[in-house]
Amino acid sequence: MTIKILFSANEENWRRYKAPLQDALDDKSLDYELGITITPSEVDYIIYAPTSVPLARMVDSGLTDGMVEWVTGHTLRHHLGIDKHIHGQDGIWRSYVPPLAKDRIITILGLGTLGTACGIALERLGFNVRGWSRREKRVDGILCFYGDDQIDSSLLDADIVVLLLPDTPLTQNILNQHTLNLLKRGAFVLNPGRGPLIDDDALLAALETGQIEHATLDVFRIEPLPKNHQYWSNNKVTVIPHKASETRPKTASQVIAMNIERAENGQELLYLVDRENGY
Amino acid sequence: MTIKILFSANEENWRRYKAPLQDALDDKSLDYELGITITPSEVDYIIYAPTSVPLARMVDSGLTDGMVEWVTGHTLRHHLGIDKHIHGQDGIWRSYVPPLAKDRIITILGLGTLGTACGIALERLGFNVRGWSRREKRVDGILCFYGDDQIDSSLLDADIVVLLLPDTPLTQNILNQHTLNLLKRGAFVLNPGRGPLIDDDALLAALETGQIEHATLDVFRIEPLPKNHQYWSNNKVTVIPHKASETRPKTASQVIAMNIERAENGQELLYLVDRENGY
Repeated sequence: MTIKILFSANEENWRRYKAPLQDALDDKSLDYELGITITPSEVDYIIYAPTSVPLARMVDSGLTDGMVEWVTGHTLRHHLGIDKHIHGQDGIWRSYVPPLAKDRIITILGLGTLGTACGIALERLGFNVRGWSRREKRVDGILCFYGDDQIDSSLLDADIVVLLLPDTPLTQNILNQHTLNLLKRGAFVLNPGRGPLIDDDALLAALETGQIEHATLDVFRIEPLPKNHQYWSNNKVTVIPHKASETRPKTASQVIAMNIERAENGQELLYLVDRENGY
Repeated sequence: MTIKILFSANEENWRRYKAPLQDALDDKSLDYELGITITPSEVDYIIYAPTSVPLARMVDSGLTDGMVEWVTGHTLRHHLGIDKHIHGQDGIWRSYVPPLAKDRIITILGLGTLGTACGIALERLGFNVRGWSRREKRVDGILCFYGDDQIDSSLLDADIVVLLLPDTPLTQNILNQHTLNLLKRGAFVLNPGRGPLIDDDALLAALETGQIEHATLDVFRIEPLPKNHQYWSNNKVTVIPHKASETRPKTASQVIAMNIERAENGQELLYLVDRENGY
C-alpha cells in the first residue's frame, strides 16, 4: 500500500526539500506519495513540526558538523585573541602571545549530540574540556559533571563556556549572575544553543565589570534580534543571526527517510522526544 | 668530565632559559656547567644560533601545538566568515550560511612537522586537505603532491592556502602571480611560515582584483613590518606580529637536553639540518 507523506510547511521549504526528500525516499525503495496537499485522513506521516506522538527530533549530521565547525572556530578565535589583531591594524607590533590550548578550560553545558561532538573536537585540539548534562553521561577525554549538584563545579575557573542545552523550564537562565561569577575573570561566553539559557541582564552586567570579556551569541529570546537591542551596540558582544548551524536539506532528508523506513519495518523511531523531559 | 655548555644569546633570553634548561639537564643526570661566559676553547656545546656542524633544528612540541591552534583558528575564521560578523554589528540580520568544511579545499605548502600536524587537525574537522612538499611524503587523510611538477595541481581550485615551507632559494616567491591565479576565486591566504615565500606585489594585485579575498600574514620580509607598509592599511590583509607560534622555553629545553644526552651517548643528533637542502 502506498505510504502517504504530508510535507507540512510553507512553499519555500517545499521547493528546497522536495527533490532531496524524493531522492532519499527512493533510495529506501518505499512505495510512497509525497506532497503538501494530501487529504488529512489519508496521511501516514507528517514531516515538519509534527504535533502527534511519536515525535522524533531532527538529528542531522550536516547540522552537527556545522555546529562543531562554529564552536571550534569561535573557541579558537577567543583563545587566540584574533579580534585583537582584526581590530589592531594600526602599525603597532604587539607582543601578546596566547597560552596553549592545554592551559585553557572549556566547559560545555549540554552533552547531547551537538555538545558531545563539539567537546571531542576541542579535546583533540588540546583543550581541557569539561561537560555538564542533566543526567549522567560519560565521554572519553571529557571531564563529565551532571545534575544540579555539580553544575557549579563544572563552571569553576573555566575560560570559555559553550551553551548547547535544550530550552526547558529547568535550563532557562542557567547562565545567570551566580554561574557567570564562577568562571575565570575575563572568560568568554558562546551561545549557539537557545536564547533563554542566558539571563541577559546578568550577562550585560558581567560584561560591564569585565568578569566576562566577550560574548558571541547566535540565538536570542526574540529573533531577529531587535535593531535597538543593547547586544548589537555593545562592543563586547558579537551578534550572529542564528547561523551557528542550519539543518541542511540533503542530510536531513536522509534521516527522515531512514526513520520512515524504520517505522514501516516495525522498528522504533530513532531520536524520539522524551515529552517528560521536554527534549 | 664536566660538559661545558655555552648559552650564546642576549641577557633577556638567558633570564628566560636559565631555569628551564637547568631543570631539563638535571633530569638527564648530566654532569654539566651551563653559562654565558665559558672560555671558548672549553665549550662542548653551544645553544642558540650555532654556526658549527652538526646543526640541529629546534623541534618544539609547544611550537607545533601553538601552530596547529593558529592555523586551525584562522582557517575556521575565514571558512565561517567570522570577520563579516565582527564587522557587521549594525543591527542587520544577515542570511549568509557558509558551506560545510567537507566542501572546502585547504592546500598546505610544506609537509614538515608543522604542516603535517596542521593538515591532520584540519582533516579531522572535515576539510579536504591537500599537501605539497619538495620530496615525496605520505600522510593519512591528506592528498599529497610533491616536486615542481605537481605544485600547480596541489593549488588548483583551493579555497585556502597555508604556507609552512622553509625559506630557501627554491621556495622564495612560491606564492606568485601564477600560483595565486590557480586558487579558487575569492580564496584566502594564510602565511605563518616565512615572509619571502610570498611575492608581495603579486599578492597585493590579487587582493585588488578579488582573486584573493583576504590574506592573514604572520611573517614578513622585514620585521617588525614597517608602519607605512601597505599591508597594515589594506583592509583585506590582517597583519599579525609574528605570533603564530613561539618556541616556548619549557618544551624547547626538553629537546635541547635530549639531544645533548644523545650526543654524550654517541647517538646521532635528532632534527639535523640538511645543509644541501638548506633546512
